[in-house]
Amino acid sequence: MGRDLTVGVMGGLGPEATVDFMAKVIALTDAARDQDHLHLIVDCNPKVPNRNLAIAGSGPSPAPELAAMARRLEQAGAELLVMPCNTAHAFVGEIRAAAAVPFVSIIEETVAELRRLPEARRIGLLTAGGCRQARLYEGALGAADLQPVTLDDAQQGRFMELLYTIKAGRRDAAVADAMRALAVELIAGGAEVIVAGCTEVPLVLRDGDLPRPLIDSTAVLAAATVAYAKRRRPLPPPRG
Amino acid sequence: MGRDLTVGVMGGLGPEATVDFMAKVIALTDAARDQDHLHLIVDCNPKVPNRNLAIAGSGPSPAPELAAMARRLEQAGAELLVMPCNTAHAFVGEIRAAAAVPFVSIIEETVAELRRLPEARRIGLLTAGGCRQARLYEGALGAADLQPVTLDDAQQGRFMELLYTIKAGRRDAAVADAMRALAVELIAGGAEVIVAGCTEVPLVLRDGDLPRPLIDSTAVLAAATVAYAKRRRPLPPPRG
Repeated sequence: MGRDLTVGVMGGLGPEATVDFMAKVIALTDAARDQDHLHLIVDCNPKVPNRNLAIAGSGPSPAPELAAMARRLEQAGAELLVMPCNTAHAFVGEIRAAAAVPFVSIIEETVAELRRLPEARRIGLLTAGGCRQARLYEGALGAADLQPVTLDDAQQGRFMELLYTIKAGRRDAAVADAMRALAVELIAGGAEVIVAGCTEVPLVLRDGDLPRPLIDSTAVLAAATVAYAKRRRPLPPPRG
Repeated sequence: MGRDLTVGVMGGLGPEATVDFMAKVIALTDAARDQDHLHLIVDCNPKVPNRNLAIAGSGPSPAPELAAMARRLEQAGAELLVMPCNTAHAFVGEIRAAAAVPFVSIIEETVAELRRLPEARRIGLLTAGGCRQARLYEGALGAADLQPVTLDDAQQGRFMELLYTIKAGRRDAAVADAMRALAVELIAGGAEVIVAGCTEVPLVLRDGDLPRPLIDSTAVLAAATVAYAKRRRPLPPPRG
């Protein structure tokens, strides 16, 4: 089995999502004492430029900061890297080019989880504008022969308002209700399962809140992180 | 004002306390968007040897690991260091000797907070065995002309059982009730205020749960971290 791998967490995108990810890693680790838990090195850097604005062409690219973060985490001892932010995976090429250690993708892990659900073909996507514009889930679902069900432009606008409201610190019932309403519209559009494909979504919406299953990308990445770091699952090849 | 200082968090002692600390820093930061939050570099390393066993002379010292952690955080860009674990402050000399940047002490900040409460003279201490044995709070309270009210040996044994139960992942009502009962015994012994002087305590006990005020050392350190990093308060001198 060997000792656990040290995990580098590219965080702060946003910070509450990073805390949610860490809490899920801890909860998913079978630990009787501190020393059984994973060693996480977390660069929680909310100063990284806004990913959605960059993808829309109206702000600076976060890629240099993300590449530098990956390198710093590797130098600090990280043996695999994860990033609990879906939209920032638009820059995964630059990140994987910057670090020699494997980078585990939240998009790939979430789509792999969806493929394990035999009944789900039509996948409702709660994703940010940049994630949608970069077709991160749409592309990966297509390759897996799964069909995305997406928000229309007006719904996507409401999603982004909610996203920035959550990032500003609001997680009350009104925000949760509005997020749930968007998921229900995806279900009305034919979605058999909903993906919380933005790490702010599970801060207000949980599996059980909807008439269809909710797949929480943060929880999927946390479970994959524990499996890789505890060497229960072979790591993806580096520089993938 | 200048830009925010980057904070190095010596974490994982235990990991849930680190997550609680990060959540409190985020909640105490006045932020309208990700970029307003602090940059935290968090070494969440639960593999550090048990502090209580080391202080009792029955386990290896964590000091070399803690000193190396402080150095690594400084090299990664941290401009001040904090450690959300009270007992590990028994090794603060080694930590401050290892890093050139200021280390903000949870003990010093919590005692400073107690001095701001004009009515509190007798301070009930919920602290771990190692923290008590190293007289971390007892010494600092004495210097501030405040009087510690401590658990007796049997109560301290029950506290340590609860501490390891929380570290094993249990935070249910029975654990919370047992922790509250210990606080109530300190109040019966004359304590006018209770200090959650172990960062696992606020995972099960909150201000308002007791007939006397509860000072949460994690929250005090989080507030101090925000004040220092936002440059609202001058930093303590380095190598203090």
